[in-house]
Amino acid sequence: MGLHRVREPAGVLPQAAWRLDPGPEIAPNEVRIRVERLNLDAASFRQLWEKHGGDGDAVRAEVCEIISTRGKMQNPVTGSGGMLIGTVEEVGRRSPLGFKPGERVATLVSLTLTPLVVTDGLARWDGRSEQVPCDGWAILFARSIAAVLPEDLDPQLSLAVLDVCGAPALTARVVSRYVAERRDARPVAVAVVGGAGKSGSLSLAAARRAGAGRTVGVVPVAGERDALVAAGLADEVVLADARDPVALSTAVTSALGVPADVTVVCVDVPGCEHGAVLATADGGTVIFFSMATSFAAAALGAEGLAADVTMLVGNGYVPGHAELALGLLRGEPGVRALFEARLAAD
Amino acid sequence: MGLHRVREPAGVLPQAAWRLDPGPEIAPNEVRIRVERLNLDAASFRQLWEKHGGDGDAVRAEVCEIISTRGKMQNPVTGSGGMLIGTVEEVGRRSPLGFKPGERVATLVSLTLTPLVVTDGLARWDGRSEQVPCDGWAILFARSIAAVLPEDLDPQLSLAVLDVCGAPALTARVVSRYVAERRDARPVAVAVVGGAGKSGSLSLAAARRAGAGRTVGVVPVAGERDALVAAGLADEVVLADARDPVALSTAVTSALGVPADVTVVCVDVPGCEHGAVLATADGGTVIFFSMATSFAAAALGAEGLAADVTMLVGNGYVPGHAELALGLLRGEPGVRALFEARLAAD
Repeated sequence: MGLHRVREPAGVLPQAAWRLDPGPEIAPNEVRIRVERLNLDAASFRQLWEKHGGDGDAVRAEVCEIISTRGKMQNPVTGSGGMLIGTVEEVGRRSPLGFKPGERVATLVSLTLTPLVVTDGLARWDGRSEQVPCDGWAILFARSIAAVLPEDLDPQLSLAVLDVCGAPALTARVVSRYVAERRDARPVAVAVVGGAGKSGSLSLAAARRAGAGRTVGVVPVAGERDALVAAGLADEVVLADARDPVALSTAVTSALGVPADVTVVCVDVPGCEHGAVLATADGGTVIFFSMATSFAAAALGAEGLAADVTMLVGNGYVPGHAELALGLLRGEPGVRALFEARLAAD
Repeated sequence: MGLHRVREPAGVLPQAAWRLDPGPEIAPNEVRIRVERLNLDAASFRQLWEKHGGDGDAVRAEVCEIISTRGKMQNPVTGSGGMLIGTVEEVGRRSPLGFKPGERVATLVSLTLTPLVVTDGLARWDGRSEQVPCDGWAILFARSIAAVLPEDLDPQLSLAVLDVCGAPALTARVVSRYVAERRDARPVAVAVVGGAGKSGSLSLAAARRAGAGRTVGVVPVAGERDALVAAGLADEVVLADARDPVALSTAVTSALGVPADVTVVCVDVPGCEHGAVLATADGGTVIFFSMATSFAAAALGAEGLAADVTMLVGNGYVPGHAELALGLLRGEPGVRALFEARLAAD
């Protein structure tokens, strides 16, 4: 768990720590990675971008400052991090991860708990995108999850998929349960808020494969609508502002004909909790994947609406999540098209 | 839903609003309550108490200021509110709540979405307890949940139970599912963190009634340990600091013999997410009822620990929750003893 890397406060786990020790000497159960790229969490990058009014140099300076101060990349405002890719440099003799030096890997644990040192001042990054070219090192613990990058896929494409691979896996698990327990002919209806994004498009594909009979993707702008329609991943695609509860629930209910059995929130803006609850049927489930989710807003919102809805904190870890997400990328041309267009635009 | 009561920002639901219109004229589907007592949310009161260093006058002044500024009692830091009791004063002709003027009721929706006016400056409150004697009025919407106070119980006792009645109802639902799906002879193991508190003691009783074969209550101090042992609501009672992940998980696992199938977090302090995840078995469920829960800490913590754990946002509304909780109070002498001792100490 990396407790010995926690500098302050004492006794917490690395993710909760204010500061980690990112020293390069590894313990017997650790692995050191030579880092080549960070992928910042979308909510974190957006917060930094807005704070600095789109000044890339200021964004870069703050990211450098965070990493050197904290020994990890964890945005102090959003609490979120991201992930990285790099090459295995040294493997402790008792590491259970099974890596060999020279293998190219992506971390699937958050940067918020990954000891990290940057040695190039992020000089090759313009501060204007979540993808951060980088030189430095990072440490993996015994239970850290990481994946060897597939050789048949562009590493940036793999990284983008692996970054959000918990979402389709948990969506598939929840939707499967509704499908298995449905006792009449009604299709299981699924809404994905932010359906054209990375986690959203994968979740739509996963929901359909898990047996969802009717799906809707909700997007904020016409460009995303057109892209998601072209991708063919949802039965319906609708435009709505997810922060407007009445607009969101009306859009979902109109598109599906009923409220959703499962609503998946994949947009990285605050204030989507109430709309998601309102869009969901009694007995339904909302899965919150956005790090911008407010626990209190969700809990009190559902209570205030007298909504008998199960609300899940989107856990980024589900066994088999990396394989499932990479399989969707390989098998669903619509998913691949959205990811490739997004990388090209970055 | 009370959208017409939202003053700013426009378009959000009352719970998310900065300011509500608490005017006394009711719409046809509303009800006006003459308020006699507020019950502040524990996390909210604790924040105010600590901010003002235990100065009751300063706490009272800030609560008055919040209510007059916002038109509702919602702590701007914790985002949480509480509930109230009072007497039905006027019922709109289209209200679906079924109340009659003169009935004494408790609101089960949060104060965070309840339009509220205080007319006595909280002059009878010393600012030193969550129970706030009060004169003023409040507005219930069509979907607001409220309960007529039972005549066989002290109103303060009923209020204290109704305030947290979502917790035992959701705990019962989740535990029942594990019991129904268990395919071997292992008992379903349940840990309740904060087991001697209001929601905690009710959740322990609910878990046992739902079929939990082994239960542990975790408490922070010896006084609570002795009280919970005397109440007889848990098979084991252990002392641990819930903010220390290793201590909490070790205490739970030692007491149960295994990690918990279901861990219920009922303590109103921040930083319990990681311990709760660590204390829970793979395939298990954590239910977070504390308003001090951090969404990001829960999501990233589970991911960082590679823990295949379902995490639920504790929804304060479950159909039948008021009746279930009042039934536990009436039927479980241990629950009643803990509640009466707590009220006597306030």
